[in-house]
Amino acid sequence: MPQGTPHSVPTSADVARLAGVSRATVSYVLNNTSAVRISEPTRRRVHAAAKELGYVPHAAARSLRAGHSRMVLMPTPQIAVGPLFSAFFNELQWALSRFDYTVVQYGSLGLTGEEAARAWAELRPVAVLAPDATALGARGVAVLKRSGAKAVFTLGPQRAEGAHALLMDQRLVGRAAAEHLLARGRRRIGVVVPEEPGLEVFSRPRLDGVRAAVRGVAAGEVTELPLAYTEDSAAHLTDRWSALGLDAVFAYNDDYAMLLTRALQDRGVAVPEDTAVVGADDLMLARLLRPRLSSVRIELPSGRGLAELVDRVVREPGGRPEVHDVLGASVVHRESS
Amino acid sequence: MPQGTPHSVPTSADVARLAGVSRATVSYVLNNTSAVRISEPTRRRVHAAAKELGYVPHAAARSLRAGHSRMVLMPTPQIAVGPLFSAFFNELQWALSRFDYTVVQYGSLGLTGEEAARAWAELRPVAVLAPDATALGARGVAVLKRSGAKAVFTLGPQRAEGAHALLMDQRLVGRAAAEHLLARGRRRIGVVVPEEPGLEVFSRPRLDGVRAAVRGVAAGEVTELPLAYTEDSAAHLTDRWSALGLDAVFAYNDDYAMLLTRALQDRGVAVPEDTAVVGADDLMLARLLRPRLSSVRIELPSGRGLAELVDRVVREPGGRPEVHDVLGASVVHRESS
Repeated sequence: MPQGTPHSVPTSADVARLAGVSRATVSYVLNNTSAVRISEPTRRRVHAAAKELGYVPHAAARSLRAGHSRMVLMPTPQIAVGPLFSAFFNELQWALSRFDYTVVQYGSLGLTGEEAARAWAELRPVAVLAPDATALGARGVAVLKRSGAKAVFTLGPQRAEGAHALLMDQRLVGRAAAEHLLARGRRRIGVVVPEEPGLEVFSRPRLDGVRAAVRGVAAGEVTELPLAYTEDSAAHLTDRWSALGLDAVFAYNDDYAMLLTRALQDRGVAVPEDTAVVGADDLMLARLLRPRLSSVRIELPSGRGLAELVDRVVREPGGRPEVHDVLGASVVHRESS
Repeated sequence: MPQGTPHSVPTSADVARLAGVSRATVSYVLNNTSAVRISEPTRRRVHAAAKELGYVPHAAARSLRAGHSRMVLMPTPQIAVGPLFSAFFNELQWALSRFDYTVVQYGSLGLTGEEAARAWAELRPVAVLAPDATALGARGVAVLKRSGAKAVFTLGPQRAEGAHALLMDQRLVGRAAAEHLLARGRRRIGVVVPEEPGLEVFSRPRLDGVRAAVRGVAAGEVTELPLAYTEDSAAHLTDRWSALGLDAVFAYNDDYAMLLTRALQDRGVAVPEDTAVVGADDLMLARLLRPRLSSVRIELPSGRGLAELVDRVVREPGGRPEVHDVLGASVVHRESS
């Protein structure tokens, strides 16, 4: 540490002193302000002084000066997300950083609506990508906008009034599975509905998608199958399997499909001969199961495209809420159906 | 919106005006300053005015006033974490919020060392919990401390000079698996080393742990098995299986164990008769495989205990770096070994 006491935090005043310039000049140089002309030697002197002192600009001070930050807040979902969404979030985060945004994830920890929005608003993000539109609500959107957020997006299966929607219509996942099963001659379709809290936001529209596809098909029938992610629950469900009279199951996702398939096989139910099974997410485990698991592959948009959209709305705020359908779904047919 | 133009952001001055008090009083009330006595009716008036206007305090302004924030920064790991670590991170986040910290996750996006630390330092966190000590390094720790961070912790298998360490010694995972296999009479132990980048930080110490346990055991032998998480790679590895002469495998984790077990079974290698297999993480899938998979269960400390530790170091900074061993490992014995 070249100057000062070991515990003093270097300030822009220290940088100004060492470089022999004003604090304003330090600020112009380090914030890359284009409105003010500063000679190349002066720029170099400021950067050298900042480096020598170990000076780091203060994002908070910068955001106070600018009136807003370059922070994009992505509240972390309350439920664990699978590898597909992890990869999507990482790509989006990377793409936003290419547009010079700082992406910050922030857990709402059980807060909902206005309360959560107020906690997020304290960070003064310029944009928010919220994973749960229902929890946020119109009032939460209003709180964020009043705090200066120029772009509020929801990212998921539902919409919130006043926010732009990156709509992930989960009904398409159920519809794809059901259309595949119907095309393979199956008619009495069970649909796994996980009992774990927080998953309804995905499982309900998936069930609705199956119902919509089966509606009007002769002899078509849909049966809801509540299932917790435990062996006990799977054993309980399959105890009365023949009484259910199902010839196919859409198992919510690949994890539940593996749980259910194992319980069926342990009871001597042949998959797919007696009951066809389709999962979703197209995980590696779908390929490793025997029979190999048919699965709905979910397609998400490129992070780059979404980052461009966010940046456009930040630069031109005030437009009407936009709705973008961003989810695609298609069945990868293997041996279980 | 009761007052102002639709796009104006309410300020503490607006709150002061509506409540008929000074800005200082608004600040004292909303920040719960205990040093200044303010009457209950005044407090109520300020809170009512803030609510009516939709005023949200600015975390950045507050941290500038205080000289530091209540922000704990947890840089997100570069690699996808499993459900075990997700649950641990969520619990820790929740526990820290009980101590009135705001937990923010922030992707370093490929930056390492000083560069990453500078990006994090811009947010002026009061504490940092960094998942990758090697990438951060002593210089990164110094950058964070100079920016005012009172507590810098690393959280993972390695240490960084100057930082407190929540040490997750992955050698214990390998050692537990190897001791279990040795006790079952196995001697020629293969160890899966994933080829996916970023996992070396876990896979190398796990391998070292196996080597340490086998060292000195008569006829004991350890063979490194590079494996990518693809069916092709598993097929390639098991093509020459009998030539390897292994009677056991520690498969890095349950996912790789499932991949390898399936490839072995497809080639007629009997598990556990010909080759015993042990995974790690004790996921649900371990119980669902046939034979049921033996797996190393990893125990992580309670979020509450860690949050207390972080809070103590923030309140009493300046002590020598502390090292806390926070990982436990024990084998859950099932049918595959």
